[in-house]
Amino acid sequence: MKTINTRRTIRKYTDQEVGEELLKGLLADAMRTQTMGNLQLYSVVVTRNARQKALLAPAHFNQPMVTQAPVVLTICADFNRTSSWCLQRKAMPGYDNFLSFVNAASDALLYTQTFCNLAEEVGLGVCYLGTTVYQPSKIIEVLHLPRLVMPIATLTVGYPAEEPSLTDRLPLSAIVHNEIYQDYTAERIDEFYLPKESLPENQHFVEINKKETLAQIFTDIRYKRADNEAMTTTFMETLRAQGFL
Amino acid sequence: MKTINTRRTIRKYTDQEVGEELLKGLLADAMRTQTMGNLQLYSVVVTRNARQKALLAPAHFNQPMVTQAPVVLTICADFNRTSSWCLQRKAMPGYDNFLSFVNAASDALLYTQTFCNLAEEVGLGVCYLGTTVYQPSKIIEVLHLPRLVMPIATLTVGYPAEEPSLTDRLPLSAIVHNEIYQDYTAERIDEFYLPKESLPENQHFVEINKKETLAQIFTDIRYKRADNEAMTTTFMETLRAQGFL
Repeated sequence: MKTINTRRTIRKYTDQEVGEELLKGLLADAMRTQTMGNLQLYSVVVTRNARQKALLAPAHFNQPMVTQAPVVLTICADFNRTSSWCLQRKAMPGYDNFLSFVNAASDALLYTQTFCNLAEEVGLGVCYLGTTVYQPSKIIEVLHLPRLVMPIATLTVGYPAEEPSLTDRLPLSAIVHNEIYQDYTAERIDEFYLPKESLPENQHFVEINKKETLAQIFTDIRYKRADNEAMTTTFMETLRAQGFL
Repeated sequence: MKTINTRRTIRKYTDQEVGEELLKGLLADAMRTQTMGNLQLYSVVVTRNARQKALLAPAHFNQPMVTQAPVVLTICADFNRTSSWCLQRKAMPGYDNFLSFVNAASDALLYTQTFCNLAEEVGLGVCYLGTTVYQPSKIIEVLHLPRLVMPIATLTVGYPAEEPSLTDRLPLSAIVHNEIYQDYTAERIDEFYLPKESLPENQHFVEINKKETLAQIFTDIRYKRADNEAMTTTFMETLRAQGFL
């Protein structure tokens, strides 16, 4: 994984197609990722059709990657396939509950990240769309996802038509705890976040949004309490509709 | 990632230590993984202390890897650090809700898998413990995890002292859907699962457990409805205790 330290999220793609064999090879290799009981509790819906991309776009706030990328992958937590197998084999599946959703969603996310690492290594650019969990019912409708299948992650995939700057990261000491979790003092918060706050692009964001601090960009604009609470309700309703609650 | 197609879960480790600099390098490189708003909503607790491993073991059903591995990593969904930063910067965090848990857990799992990919590439062996979400409150107690921090994944890490056979996988066509999800017919279920059911080791499992089918091993022994439902209750209670519900 020589590419890990130079990877960046790619949101603009060239016209070059992502070959069918290349894509299949990456999707197959990613299947080596460990899963619960080796049950592979995920499915991947591949979208290449322009009309389908246009139908998916609103679920992702019409971010242009969805319609511009040659390939869109929607990775789903899937207990439908395993449950169908059980029913066909005189076994009574008990996976219509929240813990089973957590297990399947974990499988799906681990699979997704191995795919990202593999795709970036062969020169593809990927954008991970966190919006997948914001309005999952739209995606379920467009992709015809049945009961016990829940969309968890979306990737747009193509050859890079941009080379954005590397984004910053917190220092390692900000995320690692030795033996027990050391809660954050005011001094350590300053130490860890001042470099991020000092970046010209972040200072510019604060200024054009007429905010006092970078943190307010997150709490007041990008990830607001009211939105999180509304999307919590939606997500729970969708989990129930899909049979996981 | 030349190792992806030969990787296997490693549950037995040699006495060789995992060097501090090597571990730090892998944990740091894995931080290049994309996260929500580049907020890095995860923390990692590193356990090397034998007493701490012994305290963690019961939460993982005393699987021997936990005490035998030189290093145990507990990767957590963490909105505590980000919320502390916000509060210190005149910003009101609104992340004590389920959707924020989903976002932080996603960040944690994607980070975890990049770490696995990197660790395996340098010759380390890793075991992913799905048990982390079964009895999270024990882990929270041992690692002193505060509000808005939830353990999501555990990895045991060391140099391999075994080389188990590669495990089987479903064919790619079992997990990939083109444009829309194609529900599984009885014929396709047979096609996808018969190879797994025909493996000598799986037939042996069925026999020694006096079951009729392999699927019954999963529904009646390994992942039972009653356990899933009980652990759903526990998990929800713990999410509430940690401030995410």
